[in-house]
Amino acid sequence: MIVHERAVRFEEVDAAGILFFARYLGFCHDAMERFFDGMPGGYVDLITRRKIGFPAVHVDGDFTAPLRYGDVARISVSVARIGGSSATLSYAMKRARDDVDAATIKHVVVATDLTTMTKLSLPADVRAHLEAHVT
Amino acid sequence: MIVHERAVRFEEVDAAGILFFARYLGFCHDAMERFFDGMPGGYVDLITRRKIGFPAVHVDGDFTAPLRYGDVARISVSVARIGGSSATLSYAMKRARDDVDAATIKHVVVATDLTTMTKLSLPADVRAHLEAHVT
Amino acid sequence: MIVHERAVRFEEVDAAGILFFARYLGFCHDAMERFFDGMPGGYVDLITRRKIGFPAVHVDGDFTAPLRYGDVARISVSVARIGGSSATLSYAMKRARDDVDAATIKHVVVATDLTTMTKLSLPADVRAHLEAHVT
Amino acid sequence: MIVHERAVRFEEVDAAGILFFARYLGFCHDAMERFFDGMPGGYVDLITRRKIGFPAVHVDGDFTAPLRYGDVARISVSVARIGGSSATLSYAMKRARDDVDAATIKHVVVATDLTTMTKLSLPADVRAHLEAHVT
Repeated sequence: MIVHERAVRFEEVDAAGILFFARYLGFCHDAMERFFDGMPGGYVDLITRRKIGFPAVHVDGDFTAPLRYGDVARISVSVARIGGSSATLSYAMKRARDDVDAATIKHVVVATDLTTMTKLSLPADVRAHLEAHVT
Repeated sequence: MIVHERAVRFEEVDAAGILFFARYLGFCHDAMERFFDGMPGGYVDLITRRKIGFPAVHVDGDFTAPLRYGDVARISVSVARIGGSSATLSYAMKRARDDVDAATIKHVVVATDLTTMTKLSLPADVRAHLEAHVT
Repeated sequence: MIVHERAVRFEEVDAAGILFFARYLGFCHDAMERFFDGMPGGYVDLITRRKIGFPAVHVDGDFTAPLRYGDVARISVSVARIGGSSATLSYAMKRARDDVDAATIKHVVVATDLTTMTKLSLPADVRAHLEAHVT
Repeated sequence: MIVHERAVRFEEVDAAGILFFARYLGFCHDAMERFFDGMPGGYVDLITRRKIGFPAVHVDGDFTAPLRYGDVARISVSVARIGGSSATLSYAMKRARDDVDAATIKHVVVATDLTTMTKLSLPADVRAHLEAHVT
């Protein structure tokens, strides 16, 4: 499990004054990138040099408390399941100031050749990194 | 059912060159606002004058085809379920140029007093509008 | 001159409750894309097929009235100057509900080969389109 | 002068593959918030408790090098001028990996009562903080 903290930025709230719900997924993507930082070159190297991406095929989330400007989200990322081409990441997001659960999100990604946009088997190093973080 | 079309904007793709997955939810929110345009004042009036919002408590989505810059998403919104305070909206998103299914998203919202951030019973006019669009 | 209208979306305000200032430039970019829609294939074709982009090298703007959720920006685009590789676009943005001036923005772009990221002479068709809209 | 570093995120590039020009201003706003972190409570306290904001009235920027996914922007913030209600902030943005100048941006903000949206004299503590950072 890795933990990533990120503050809600000034421009990330909506007209209701709370973090826009779609942005929770962006926060999770950031946490996933921090997860891949454990590999040499991180997510940037996968995307820009190796042209391997991990588009979402499924997302499932429960939102239990709002975040406002000034709040910090503390996101714990773990690996729930590894398939041939896919992986399921789990994110538990807390509001740091009071440790309240803010969201629980499941995110299924599929290793994809970004040039052809076709499915790939999980590369061996990616698989090993995922396996090291299965809950 | 109401149908909303929206083009993928220049700034909405990610470093993999496709519509960032979190933004699909933003597209759905736009479609939900268009849905509420069927009520006098629309979503803007609910939010800004009546201070009633509809934060998401649950989201569930399958992503089946990428959208790129220049693609248009055609989103059909319908109401799948109405509770005391909540409603479940369903979105079927197609890529307009080839009519391929791009995503199917379920979105559970709860009527909320934006001043106190507490749950409300669905206001009668909102309930009536939702009921008129149950699939 | 071409005119483009765009509503401020639910997620585009900031924690001060007004359209985040950086997003005014995104609104102008949309208006610029609508301007290029006057050419066959529009901006999408330039970017995705011809790999010709128009990155900004200079921006200059005065902001004179806030826009809120529900407001519509009415943006008039014109061409102020054409160089060998560059063009200067001018945007006059009004708040549609009361016709108040919201912003005046100048935007200098340079035709760029997106593969090599080097400057290009303005392609003949682009130049002709720009010339047809000089104020 | 304070210095703020921020990586270009996966979702912040545009269809040309570079940091979308409007987002440079968002990066500057982040740097400005870090600047105000030098005051007790920071920008968050100003906005959310004191209801004092600093909307932009003018922006002026030159963009000299693109940033891509994986690049880090190193932004130096200083105060160029202080008026009765306004302040001019200067941002020098470098691409961290090669120390190339990426952008130079000038940003004029006006102290504003967010409840009435009227101009305020600069509060004494804000003025003192600005004065301590004049270049």
